[in-house]
Formats: sequence, C-alpha cells, structure tokens
Amino acid sequence: MSRFFVSQLQHNQQVDQVFLASNKQLRPNRQGNLFLQIDLSDRSGSMPCRMWNATERDYAAIENGDYVYVEGTAQLFQGSMQLIAQSIKRAEPGDVDESDFMTLQTSEVQELKERLLKTLRGIKSKPLAALVEAYLTDDVFMDKFCRAPAGIKNHHAYKGGLLDHVVNLMDVAQAVAPKYPQVDVEKLLVGVFLHDSGKVDELEYERDLAYTDEGQMIGHIVQAACLLDRKAREAEGRAQLAFPPMLLMELKHMVLSHHGHLAFGSPKLPMTLEAVVLSAIDDMDAKLASFTGLIKECPNADSRWTQYFPNIDRKLWKGVKGD
Amino acid sequence: MSRFFVSQLQHNQQVDQVFLASNKQLRPNRQGNLFLQIDLSDRSGSMPCRMWNATERDYAAIENGDYVYVEGTAQLFQGSMQLIAQSIKRAEPGDVDESDFMTLQTSEVQELKERLLKTLRGIKSKPLAALVEAYLTDDVFMDKFCRAPAGIKNHHAYKGGLLDHVVNLMDVAQAVAPKYPQVDVEKLLVGVFLHDSGKVDELEYERDLAYTDEGQMIGHIVQAACLLDRKAREAEGRAQLAFPPMLLMELKHMVLSHHGHLAFGSPKLPMTLEAVVLSAIDDMDAKLASFTGLIKECPNADSRWTQYFPNIDRKLWKGVKGD
Amino acid sequence: MSRFFVSQLQHNQQVDQVFLASNKQLRPNRQGNLFLQIDLSDRSGSMPCRMWNATERDYAAIENGDYVYVEGTAQLFQGSMQLIAQSIKRAEPGDVDESDFMTLQTSEVQELKERLLKTLRGIKSKPLAALVEAYLTDDVFMDKFCRAPAGIKNHHAYKGGLLDHVVNLMDVAQAVAPKYPQVDVEKLLVGVFLHDSGKVDELEYERDLAYTDEGQMIGHIVQAACLLDRKAREAEGRAQLAFPPMLLMELKHMVLSHHGHLAFGSPKLPMTLEAVVLSAIDDMDAKLASFTGLIKECPNADSRWTQYFPNIDRKLWKGVKGD
Amino acid sequence: MSRFFVSQLQHNQQVDQVFLASNKQLRPNRQGNLFLQIDLSDRSGSMPCRMWNATERDYAAIENGDYVYVEGTAQLFQGSMQLIAQSIKRAEPGDVDESDFMTLQTSEVQELKERLLKTLRGIKSKPLAALVEAYLTDDVFMDKFCRAPAGIKNHHAYKGGLLDHVVNLMDVAQAVAPKYPQVDVEKLLVGVFLHDSGKVDELEYERDLAYTDEGQMIGHIVQAACLLDRKAREAEGRAQLAFPPMLLMELKHMVLSHHGHLAFGSPKLPMTLEAVVLSAIDDMDAKLASFTGLIKECPNADSRWTQYFPNIDRKLWKGVKGD
Amino acid sequence: MSRFFVSQLQHNQQVDQVFLASNKQLRPNRQGNLFLQIDLSDRSGSMPCRMWNATERDYAAIENGDYVYVEGTAQLFQGSMQLIAQSIKRAEPGDVDESDFMTLQTSEVQELKERLLKTLRGIKSKPLAALVEAYLTDDVFMDKFCRAPAGIKNHHAYKGGLLDHVVNLMDVAQAVAPKYPQVDVEKLLVGVFLHDSGKVDELEYERDLAYTDEGQMIGHIVQAACLLDRKAREAEGRAQLAFPPMLLMELKHMVLSHHGHLAFGSPKLPMTLEAVVLSAIDDMDAKLASFTGLIKECPNADSRWTQYFPNIDRKLWKGVKGD
Amino acid sequence: MSRFFVSQLQHNQQVDQVFLASNKQLRPNRQGNLFLQIDLSDRSGSMPCRMWNATERDYAAIENGDYVYVEGTAQLFQGSMQLIAQSIKRAEPGDVDESDFMTLQTSEVQELKERLLKTLRGIKSKPLAALVEAYLTDDVFMDKFCRAPAGIKNHHAYKGGLLDHVVNLMDVAQAVAPKYPQVDVEKLLVGVFLHDSGKVDELEYERDLAYTDEGQMIGHIVQAACLLDRKAREAEGRAQLAFPPMLLMELKHMVLSHHGHLAFGSPKLPMTLEAVVLSAIDDMDAKLASFTGLIKECPNADSRWTQYFPNIDRKLWKGVKGD
Repeated sequence: MSRFFVSQLQHNQQVDQVFLASNKQLRPNRQGNLFLQIDLSDRSGSMPCRMWNATERDYAAIENGDYVYVEGTAQLFQGSMQLIAQSIKRAEPGDVDESDFMTLQTSEVQELKERLLKTLRGIKSKPLAALVEAYLTDDVFMDKFCRAPAGIKNHHAYKGGLLDHVVNLMDVAQAVAPKYPQVDVEKLLVGVFLHDSGKVDELEYERDLAYTDEGQMIGHIVQAACLLDRKAREAEGRAQLAFPPMLLMELKHMVLSHHGHLAFGSPKLPMTLEAVVLSAIDDMDAKLASFTGLIKECPNADSRWTQYFPNIDRKLWKGVKGD
Repeated sequence: MSRFFVSQLQHNQQVDQVFLASNKQLRPNRQGNLFLQIDLSDRSGSMPCRMWNATERDYAAIENGDYVYVEGTAQLFQGSMQLIAQSIKRAEPGDVDESDFMTLQTSEVQELKERLLKTLRGIKSKPLAALVEAYLTDDVFMDKFCRAPAGIKNHHAYKGGLLDHVVNLMDVAQAVAPKYPQVDVEKLLVGVFLHDSGKVDELEYERDLAYTDEGQMIGHIVQAACLLDRKAREAEGRAQLAFPPMLLMELKHMVLSHHGHLAFGSPKLPMTLEAVVLSAIDDMDAKLASFTGLIKECPNADSRWTQYFPNIDRKLWKGVKGD
Repeated sequence: MSRFFVSQLQHNQQVDQVFLASNKQLRPNRQGNLFLQIDLSDRSGSMPCRMWNATERDYAAIENGDYVYVEGTAQLFQGSMQLIAQSIKRAEPGDVDESDFMTLQTSEVQELKERLLKTLRGIKSKPLAALVEAYLTDDVFMDKFCRAPAGIKNHHAYKGGLLDHVVNLMDVAQAVAPKYPQVDVEKLLVGVFLHDSGKVDELEYERDLAYTDEGQMIGHIVQAACLLDRKAREAEGRAQLAFPPMLLMELKHMVLSHHGHLAFGSPKLPMTLEAVVLSAIDDMDAKLASFTGLIKECPNADSRWTQYFPNIDRKLWKGVKGD
Repeated sequence: MSRFFVSQLQHNQQVDQVFLASNKQLRPNRQGNLFLQIDLSDRSGSMPCRMWNATERDYAAIENGDYVYVEGTAQLFQGSMQLIAQSIKRAEPGDVDESDFMTLQTSEVQELKERLLKTLRGIKSKPLAALVEAYLTDDVFMDKFCRAPAGIKNHHAYKGGLLDHVVNLMDVAQAVAPKYPQVDVEKLLVGVFLHDSGKVDELEYERDLAYTDEGQMIGHIVQAACLLDRKAREAEGRAQLAFPPMLLMELKHMVLSHHGHLAFGSPKLPMTLEAVVLSAIDDMDAKLASFTGLIKECPNADSRWTQYFPNIDRKLWKGVKGD
Repeated sequence: MSRFFVSQLQHNQQVDQVFLASNKQLRPNRQGNLFLQIDLSDRSGSMPCRMWNATERDYAAIENGDYVYVEGTAQLFQGSMQLIAQSIKRAEPGDVDESDFMTLQTSEVQELKERLLKTLRGIKSKPLAALVEAYLTDDVFMDKFCRAPAGIKNHHAYKGGLLDHVVNLMDVAQAVAPKYPQVDVEKLLVGVFLHDSGKVDELEYERDLAYTDEGQMIGHIVQAACLLDRKAREAEGRAQLAFPPMLLMELKHMVLSHHGHLAFGSPKLPMTLEAVVLSAIDDMDAKLASFTGLIKECPNADSRWTQYFPNIDRKLWKGVKGD
Repeated sequence: MSRFFVSQLQHNQQVDQVFLASNKQLRPNRQGNLFLQIDLSDRSGSMPCRMWNATERDYAAIENGDYVYVEGTAQLFQGSMQLIAQSIKRAEPGDVDESDFMTLQTSEVQELKERLLKTLRGIKSKPLAALVEAYLTDDVFMDKFCRAPAGIKNHHAYKGGLLDHVVNLMDVAQAVAPKYPQVDVEKLLVGVFLHDSGKVDELEYERDLAYTDEGQMIGHIVQAACLLDRKAREAEGRAQLAFPPMLLMELKHMVLSHHGHLAFGSPKLPMTLEAVVLSAIDDMDAKLASFTGLIKECPNADSRWTQYFPNIDRKLWKGVKGD
C-alpha cells in the first residue's frame, strides 16, 4: 500500500503506517488517566499525536528517534492536523522505507556532493586547494558534512540541509563575485564551504535533530574556527608547504564574522570584502529559505497573509493566486 | 598643459590649474588676519586649500560650485595633502575641461543608460512594462536620473552615481534571481529601478552635492513612493489598462522597505520575497562600494589596516601586497 | 424586551438576543466531537462563545461580521465571562437595533463632525483653507473619515473612533498652542486633521475591524502622505492658487514624523515645532485613552492594580475608591 | 553709556564694559607665551575671550563668577564672535547693573511667583493645600525656587528658569486637563510644582551654573522625593491632619516617573494618569524651549536649517521668512 | 505522623496533612462544573492543587495565606507534580508546625542576625557606627529586616532571605576588599547593609510574598534612600555629631546605584569605587543564588541541561554526575 | 644624575635624559615649516613632545619603540604637560636603565610568577593539573605570558600587566569561592589562568603596545579557545590520560563567555556557575583597575570630580582629602 504523507492527511482519514517518533511524553488528563503524547513525522512534515489511556509500558516501549507503526485517525484541531492513535508500536525494519523520511533522496545528496567537489577542486590557489583537500579527503568529516542539517528549525532543517545550503550559496557566490572584481572569488568559495562546517559537531542528526552539548556551550562558529586550525596544519603536511598565515587568518575571520553582528554571536564584524559578501549572501539565502518555508506551510488557506511571527516581527505576504 | 589630479599631487608640488570649489569660508587667524579656506576637487578626489591674507573681496569673488583657477603649492599636513594658494579666481569657461571633473565620462553614462534601457525594455509583464515606460519616456525624470548621485558621501557620491548603482544592482539581481525560482525576477528588476528613484529630488547635484529641503524633511523613500503613485496612473492612461492594485502595492512596498530596518528609515520591514532580495543586495552593494572606497583612499600606506571608522564601528583590512 | 449588554452579564444568566459575530472557528474537542467557537460583541464589549456538538453546517451558516441571534447561558471562566450557546443563527434585519452596536451614536458622530467642520473652516490661511476644503468636500473621504476607527485595538478602536480622536486632539491643540506663541496654530490644526487620515484606507471597518492589505504593506503614514500630494493638487485647481511648496512639505513632514521615533514607523523625526507638538499630544492622547480603557476594563475588582501588561511594561494604578 | 550686549556685537567693534566671567584658563601658545582664555557673558548670551601675553597674576586676579571690566575688540572666528582683550580686571560694584545679567528681570520673577501662588492657593483638597503651604511658607526653599535655573544647558538655563518652566507648565496643565475628565487636575498641578523641586539643590547658581556634588551623585529626582517626605510630615503638623499615605505615594510617584523612561533616569515608569500627563507635557515643554532656542541662536543666517545636533539626532527647520 | 514535604512527593502518593495556601481561584470546567484551584506550599517548595466539584462555600472557607488541611493524591502532570484534593479545610492551630514552612529555622535566623551585629558593631568610623546603630536599635526595623525576603521570585524569595543575602554579601565584601586597598571596607559594609533595606517596606511577607503598593510605585531603591536620610538625622541626635554630608551622600549613592544600570532601575551609575564593588558582588550573588536554584529545581532529571529561560536568555548546564 | 619621571615634571623644567619614543610624525606648521611630533614615556606615564624646525633626517633617525635622548623644556599646555625639545637622538645602550621604563620591576614579575605557579601547582584534579602543566612547561608561552600587557589602554596596559591581572584575580577567586560551595574552585582557577591567555598573541609588546593583525581579526577570546584545544591534546600525551571532553568543553566555555555579553564580543553567555563567577570578578577587577587609574591620573587637582568619560558614560568621584 502506498503511503499517505503527513502533509497530505485529511480530517477523519484513517492511518495505518510507519512514522518517525520524537518528543514522547506520558501525561495524565484531568481525570487522572494517562495519555501518550508524541510527535510523528516523515519527509513531508510533522504533527502531534495522542494516544488516550496509555500505560507506562506503552511509554517505555518506544524511544525518540524510533520508527513506529501507528494506527489511528487524523483530526483537525485548532487549525492544525493531529493524529489520535489507537496503537503505536516499534516498526519492524522491513516495514520502513527510509526514503520516505528523507527530505533529500540519496541520489540528490550524491549530486549535491558532486557539485561541491567540482567547484572546490576547480580552485587554483595552491594553499587554498591544499586546505580544501584536507577536508574533502577526511571521510569522517565529509560523511557528516553530507548528512548534517543546517539548523534545527527555520531554514534547511533536514539531513543534508547543510550540504544543500552550502552548494546553493556557492552558486550565488559565483554569480555575484564577477560583479565585484575587487572580491577574491576563491577565498569567498572556501569561506562559503567552511562557514558552517562547525555544524557537523554542533548538531545531532542521527535520529532527532538537536544541539549537542558542545554545540550549546561552544557553538559552531568557534568549533569551525578551531577545526580550521587543525586542517591548515594537515594541509601543510600534505602539500609540503607553509600555509600563509595571513590567508589562514582571513579564512578564520570569514568564519568568525559570518553572522554579521556581535548580537548574533559573531565575535568579530566583517572586516574584509570577502567576509562582507559571505555574511550578506548567507543572510539572504537563510531568509529566503526560511520565509519560503513559512509561506508554504501556512495552514490558513483563505488568507493572503501568513500569521504574525514574533521572531521576525512581521507577517509575510503570500500574494494572490494568478498574480 | 596636462593636468595634475588631486590624487596625484606630491608634497611641495607647484600647482597652476582649474579646480571645482566648495565650502568656502573667510576666517581670522590668531593675529586677527583673515584667510580664505575652501575645498578644491576634481574627479580624482578633493583637498582643503588655504589662502593667507585674504580679503572680503577675495571671498565674495567666488561661489561654491564655481570652477576656479588656482596658483599655489601642495603641502602634506597631518598625513593629508592640502594646498596653500597664492591666488584663487573664477575660471574662464574656456579654461575648463568638464571631463576632468566627472567621475563618469559622458560616454560611460551613455553606455550605462543603454544597459538600463535594454534590461527594462526586456520586461514581459504588460503592467510592469507600461509602468517602466512611464518613467523612461519622462525626459525630465530620466535626465535627472542619469545625473543624480546615489548619496552625498559614502557610496556612489558622484554625478551619475545613482545610475551606476542601479545598473550594477540589476546585474546582481539577474545573477542571483535564477538561484531562487520562487522570486519573481521582473518585479525585482522594477524594484531595483525604483528603489532610489526619490533621490533625483532628495539631492542637489547641479554644483555641490547636498540634500534638498524636501530631501531632508520627507526623504527619498517616501518621495519615490508618492512618485510611483503618479506614474502608475500615467501608465494606466498610456497603456489603456487598469494597473493591478496588488502589484502596485507590492512595488511600493519594495521601495518603502528597502532599507531593511525601521531604524534605518524604512517604515515597513520586507514582507515579500522580492523585497527581501532587494534590501539584501542593495545593502551588500552599498557596503562593498563604500568599503572599497575607504580602503582605496586610505592615506596610511604603511599599514595593512585602515584607520578605525566610528560609523561602521571597525577598521578594514587592506591586506598584504602580493597576497 | 430590553437588551442585556455584554458588560452587564452575570454568571449563569440566560441570554436570548442579537450579537455581532467575529472570529468563528470549528474545532474538535478531545473526544473528537466538534464545537463552534466565536466572539460575540455589542457596543459595551465582547466575549468568547462556545456551542458544543456543532456541525459543519452550523459553521457555514454564519459569517464573521454577521448579526446573530443567540440562545445560551453566561458563565464565568478564568475570571472572564463567556457564553455557552444552545443555538446561534443569523439574525433577521428586523431583530437588529444598530445603535446597540455602535460606541458612538449617530447623533454623537454628527456632533463631532460639526465641531470638526467649525474648527477647520475657521482657518484663515488661504492655502490651508483651500487644502482643507479639498478633503471636506470629498464625500467619499469624509464618509470614511467619520466611520473609521483609530486602531484595531488599544485606543479608539470603534467606528467613529478616528473622528473622536481627531476632534479631541484639536481641542488639546487649541488649548496648548496659545502657551507657545512660536507655534503656528493653523498648521498644527491641519496637521492634527491629516496625521491619521491614511487610516481610512489602512483599516477595514465595515464589519470586523482589521488591517487592509495595503494597510499592512504600506501603512497609514505613507498612505496619508501620498493622499496629501493629490489633495494639494486638487486645492490648486479649486482655489486658483499655487500651493506653496514649503508649506506642503511641512504638512507632509508632520504626517510622516507624528509617531515621533523611527522605531515606531516614522521615517523622519520631528524637525519643526508644529511636528514636535503634534507628536507629543498625539502620544499623550493615545496613552490616556488606552490606559483609561485598561483601568476601566480590568476584571479584577478587588485589586488596586491592573494586571501587568507586557506591551507597556507596567501595571497601572487604579487607586482607592473615595480617594 | 549704554551697553552693547553680547548678541549685538559686530566684527571689529571696540568694547569697554562689564561682563560676567567664567571658565578661566591660563595657557601657553606654541611659542611658549601664556595667554588667558575666559568666557564672558551677559543676559543676551556668552562668547569666548582671549588676552594674549597674560601672566599668572592676571589669571589670579579674577575668579569665575566675577563681574569683570574688559577692554578689547570683537572678532568673528570660525563663524562665532569672540573677544580679543587688551585688559581684564575685576569690576567695581558701582560699575555693575545687575539687570544686564539676568534673563528675567526682578519684576518678571515677581510676577511669575504671584501667578504660581495664585494657582497653588486655589487648590481645594485639604491635604494638597496643606502640603503646598509647607513649601510656600518655607522662605529658604521659595527663595531658591525663584532663583534656580531649570538646567545648566538646553532649556531654561538661567536664574529664574525653573520658576518660568513650572509656571508655564501649570498653564499647559490647566489647559489640557479639562479635555480629560479622568485626570485629577489638582494632583497634576501639585505634581507640576514638585517635579523639578530637587533642582534647587541639584544645581549651583549663585554665580556659575553647575551641578552640585549631591546633584551629580543623587540627582534632583531622588532629592525631590526625599524632600517631599519631609514636607508631608510638616504639613501634618501644620494642618493637624494625617496626610493620606496613598496620596503621598502618588505624588512621590509623579516626581520619580516624570522623565518617562528608565534610560532617562526615572526609576519608575508612569503608572497613574496624572503621571502620564506630567511626563508628556514636561517633555513637550522642554523640547519646545530647547528647539526654539537652537533655532534662535543658529549663527548660520543664510540657511533654512540649523546645523545637525548629535544629541537630538537631527537638524531643525528654521523655515522661510514670510512663510 | 511525620510530614511528606512537597519536594518529596511521588506520583500517586496519598496526602493527608497541612500546607500553606495561596492564589485560590474558583473556576468552571467545560461542562460548567466548578473546581477550586489553589497553590500549596511548605518550606521545600510549592505545587498546584485542584479540587473538582467545588462550591462557592469551599472557596469562601479559606483565605490566601491560611494553613489548610488537605486530603488528596499527588499526580505527575506535564512533568510537574500536582495535587488532586478530596477535601481542603482551614487547619487548626494545633495541627501546624510552623517550622515546616520556614526555609530558615528560627535558630538559623538568630545566628545570621548575630553575624550581622558582630560585623556591623566592629565598624570603627564614628559616624558610620552611629548611623548603623540607628538602624540596629530600631526594633521595628530590625524585626522586619530579619523576616523580609530579598525578592518575590528568583533569588532569596523566603522569609529571612534578605538577612541571608546581606550576611553572605558581607562575607564576600570582607573577602574581596583586602585585594583592593583603594576600597574603603567600612563604607562598603554599610552599603551592603543598606542597599536592599527598602525591601522591608517594598514587600509584604506576613503571609503571601507580594509587592506593597508603595513597593510598586516607589521601589525599594528610593525607599531606602529616603529612610537613610531619616536615620542619618537620628544618628546625629544620638551621637551628638554632625553627620558628614559627603559621607551621607556617598552612602545614598551606593544605595541608588547598586542595580548598576539605568535600565535596571538605578537612577545613577556607580561613580565611587565602593559603589562599583557593591553593584558587582550584589549582581554575582544574586545570579549565583538564582542559577543554583534553577538547576536544583529542574524537573528534567534525564537532561544535562535545564530548559531555556527567556528572562536570562539561556539554558544552564547541570553537568554530569561524578564530573 | 637621577631621573625626573614624566609624572613629576613641572612647568618650565629643563629636561636632559632618556625616554621611550612612540607615535612619531613629521608635520608642517602653517608657515610650511616642518616639526617633529612624538610621544615620550617612562614607567610613570607619557606625554607629547614637539621639536620645531625638524628635518626629514631627524624623522628618519629614530624609530617608534627606540630609547631616545632628549634635551628640552616641559610646558603646561591645555592642562597637560608636554615637552618642547631642542634635540632628540637615539640613546646609547649604556644610557638606558631599563627599570625606569617598566611598571613592574623584574623582581616583582618574578614574585608574581611564583605566586601563579604556587597556586596552579596546588590543583589536585589530575586532568586539570596535567593541562595546566602543559602551559607552565611551555617556555615560549610562559615567557610571553609574563611580559604581555592585559590591554593597550585602560586597565593593566603595561608589560607584565596580564600576569598582574591574573594573579590578582586568582586571589579574588580564592577569596570568593569558599562563600559559594556549589562553585568548583579548581575549575574557576584554571578559568582565571586561561581566560586572557589569547592576549599573548593578540597584542604586540616588544616595543609599542598594539594589536597584532591576528588580534584584530580573530581576537584573544577565540585565540585562547583554539590554543586550549592544542594544550589539552598535549596534556593527554604528557599525562597518559584521556582528557574528559566535558571538562574541556566547560573550560573552553569559560574562556568564550568571560566578557559576559554578546555585545562585548563573547559568542556565548555564561551557562555554568564557574563561568558566571569568572565573568563577574573579571569585570569588577577591570573596572576597579581602570577607574582607580582614571582618578589617579586626573589632572584637575582642584575638583572633587574627574572629567566626564564618554566610554563609561559618567564622571568619577575623587572625594575629599581627609574624608
């Protein structure tokens, strides 16, 4: 039987299939009876689910990040879809088609990775090429880089989202740079590649998306800067060269300053032209990805406006069909 | 005799040629003797000039914005070049080669204008094309649009600077838009064309660059929005169409929100995707033009850093030659 | 039978009369049964209403903005009154006494309008008088001006509220101006008249109070400024005069700067004395109207304090009876 | 011989008369010769003065705050008038006409004081009347209250300026209050009377205007609040009544909150309607007095604009003559 | 029978004992049946309690601040413990052991008070000693000082909390001061003693913790400053000395500036070295007490992090056991 | 001949001795004659110096950072001492007593270093001890650590200033920690040791104090964090242990968060108790050192106040002698 994706469910539709579970809680209702609350998702989105009259055993039988097999009914509640489950149990491996749970399919990830390699291996500067190679040939790093999300909410919050964001940003960088001959496009491309590289360790994404301890305490900006130190030393060994210290400094500066403002966690403001461009296009790409998502997921089909979002202090205009 | 440009003058060099005058003042020194202080410029830059033992008559003989013929000596003072003049008098029209005083030559302006027309006349949307035509066929507007600066200091502060800024931004918009299919590139291009159109009346640029009264009290953002109202009605007459009110609203919104923050004088935050892109690339283009200028004009040749600039709260990195 | 107003309802009181409906929603409860939630109001205030076991048909039978006939019981819930309805249906026109739903009665609006006309037609400056007349003789504008609210919440959020606010502010302006001879009282009065004139198009108030699309994207400040442009040209035609451009500029500036701060959506700070006074008394009048309302509507009769309001970052002192 | 006031002096005019001295300094020039620099003022304004080739004895012979007899020549320097003195010596008492140095003449102060008494003695509330009387019958307080300035620069910075400001504000309060019946006009009037009463001790004004030590460390807001405590106890003794504690609290709150924002040194935001009005009209009156002064004193007669003032982040519009 | 403290209750545990009641409300559920909601506490913490099917009589039978005898069952709800009560009635005096409801036991308070006295009576400066004595011998003040909390939430929010905070801060002051010989330790100790002395009147703590009217309108900072004025005059009488006005001013300044920033309600920034130290250690002590409490009370036993707290804009790290 | 220190010079005093030179400039005066301007310092302070009628040769003969032999006369100018030199030439090594130019004498640095070693070698935690040893046995690091300043202006801006600041802060940490048993004193001590360790590379201090390129682009906070990474790996090798990753993370967090606010360049807020204490005492120590210096160096001997300092937005109280 083919799957009904979360984004396709209708009010009162019967459901009998596998979801990814997260955020489980066992809670009593006002009569003191327990119910299980859990979030269910697939690659199309996520929704809350409740199972009435649950037991401690039901709660213990599944873990956040498990694939679970659910029987129940979809219901519209306060404008959003939720699931009322009759049963929830851990799925058998044979029941799961992993591609149902990936925003990016394996082939798409592969294609993005090839575009990344092609661009980076076109770099002509000897030290930059050697540095890039130190990352590209680090299988552990590259494996994580291709699976990491770019965030846990807002923009590119899915496995492979980091790669997606970086490859798109490289395209933008290559389109913009020729308009500004004073900008060194190779430095800029390496900056794009590295700017969020700390996210491979800032975030957990094997199952749930979450911040790691180190991600919360140190942050991906400083994690990426310290990693760059190590990779530059590796590049020196690999390429038999002394990595130019000014160049290393400029690259580290691009990483540190790419949030553009101290208040956004960058300990330095952009002080080179390449850092200015990186921080500008990163902000634009993140805003476009995030706003596009907010418009697309807006549940209020009748309105030309999304709801008001406090974190961006505005509503967004969805426009008129055929406009 | 060929000219020595301001940017080429050396300490103790004799000078005997025409400059553009501005900011004249007659002041007494400590002994009570009067001297004339005035700024002299050509297309390469500007410098202060002093003529000792000046009289009220010397002061009255020239106006700000005049071309003046100056004899004197260049002198390095506190790291900057200044001129000590023996005589300053109004230049004869025959002495002046206007091209020495224009950052953009007539042919360059012409070429920029042609690129502008080509891009705008490629727009396919009927109402957008009709609207654009209402501006392009307004000779008074277009004449001012091609001569206006984009600002009175910082970025693109020269005659033709507005046109230069807009054409470059159109290039950037056309390079960036294909990476974001959800962005309507024709709306974006019209937004780029119009966003600073209020500057034709916000600034005075016949002689000195300065704000007009209306520029200071109303500002180019609202001036452009009200002009757009009138041009949309013109377009309706011209093209025998009812201009779509939602489209007019979106264009006006792009103009109003293009500074990106209330604190920067935009009465609305960007609420459409095109407004987000416009405000992002406008900010990037302005920062790159301004920072590139600050680096280029930095008088401190020995340092890898510019001085600290309070308005951007940072020094800029000039880098190492051969880096 | 005479009406029980919302503000008069008691716990457990039976209700059987007409209300104005808004904000309707059909929602499932935890057992999956649907209920209808809707807000009911009259001129004394509004309250939420729920009808259990509702159907899609019940939901479709009424529209936001309809007068509805409701049978049910008032109930105190979490300190606020709500209505549990047995039936809700669209009211017959004959059942509705519109005056029950208007904060200002027709005669009060008429009286306010006459005070407005009297003040404005006392203006002696030729161009100001001609300009004012261009608004006063615009029946569409004046009809909207007399029905528009001044906001959708906080101060003067009712039909006729804009007129009420403007007439009161004119009184204050006329009381204050004589204390400051350097302030031009006629400019100030016209500024008061025009400062919120954009609200006639920023807000919808035929049924529900809401922002229009243009209100959200452009805002009443810029709407009023562009309208002023058109009206000044009308005045020129009407009065056979060239409207003094400096005067138009000053009036537009008063409109643009009347929120007093960039962060509050004014693209310019007050730079004339009349603009300073307008922004000061507008802020005072709005604060007094809003705070008086918050104190009056405070449900907590036992306390000398209102609750804490995050948007004004304070509690308000209600004082002691007989104090 | 009749006096030339500072505001009337012309370039190269000979001067031979008495001024008030302040801010004296003895400084070497580049040749190591000493000169005396000092500010000279009368009721029309102030200007800097220099005496070349001065000695330690010249410096010691006069004190800041002295009346001095000066011979010299007025000179325009960088757009402002200054005096080059041949001699400066302490004036004989007989040479001084004190009225030349007072912005307000004795009779004007007397008239203002009578208006203050009339208004305050019209208060009907028993406790408020008793409280006010405790201030009015305190001769030391009233003497200082009638001589104190309202500030050391900006608005009302002259002896009697506090009284001037308070009496004008009472007029505004009485004009505004009838428009808002919910505001208690007598509380408001007492709040106006007391709000800056701490300035009698915050400022020194016997000779130079300056902050006292306590003014700088404690501030007039808290000084006024503590004084009010003492006066309320006095009023109790005098009027044989128990001063209502809630009323005392509300008055003290008006004093504490009258700057309107924590960032402006008010430890509390206005939480009563009277406190809202007091803080609004005080701000308006101060801005109007200050901006009017900046416009009037603007030395640049050719411009329709004042210079840019960083502390108010704007230029001011002076307008067109005959406008 | 020995007591089960709030912090010790387990899911489904039967309860049959006395609590302190606060925050009572009578509310209808969706079926229109009333229930009683109330907070129950003892010295270990507090929890919400609900009694279904309550009546107006149940509601009226108890007051906030009463000791109540409760029968019911503890239940975990949304990660927090709550009580479902079968009956709630006012406790008999004989049922109450007051020590169960005090964070600090009588003997602990006594010991803290003795440490306070010992430190303060070791002060050698004559005027400081006399001033301190004016407080210490004021039995009403000292009684309140030893019972007042330091706040109504966050740090030291329990009876005796003010004393606890002050004595600990004196220890810190005495430890830190010797590292900075330029700091006058006796001034600093008196500043510590007085800085929060206004809290004896800012807060109510006989039963519930709450702000008094005066606390909300005036605030403890100004209350303490005005009290200090009176005590200094008392000290003068008592010790037959003229209290040095500069010293009084410095002490008052320490009180006024101890919040360290205008935005935190201090009308002055610290301008003396002692004021700098006081504000620094007060902030550190408050943060440590508050953060330690947030970590200790974190209900989420499985996580190494507390939840995110918006008021401090961060999560806190609880660490790893055995770390 | 014994030396006159900069801080001891009197007006008109003859000078004939060695100074440290910095900030040299060759400038023309108004007559076009060149003069040399340079700053001269010794351990007591610094002052500007001018030599009239200088030549390019004079300018080229000395370098910033040289010891120079100067003949000239001290002169008070605008309240500050300056030197008018007759001759300036490079000093012979034999003429220089280096101890005249060091705020801290060699023996004082040695003593501070021993206190540092004693405290750090008392640490009992195995991994912390191993980590500390990796720094202490790094001679290059320790040599720089003992010579580095803590800043280039404000607090501890002299060679050895970093060591001085750290050792004093360790004393404070050890005094404060026992008052808070929940704080781990050993973690805190290591945090104090490491928090500014990046300053050894952020600043240049062989001759002039200045920021290095890397200091400006990366900053000492991130430099210290990356260094810590390397030292932890060294400690693992040295001590044959796996450095606990949580502990490394907490230490790195203390370094990153020690400025306490994002706006001050910390990319993370303090989230552990030790980080809270470190950032509080570091701020207090820096403020006390800086304010004490501002008070001590205040040239205005007659006033009880320093001047107003914009960067701290206040004047400081110097107090009354004998107070």
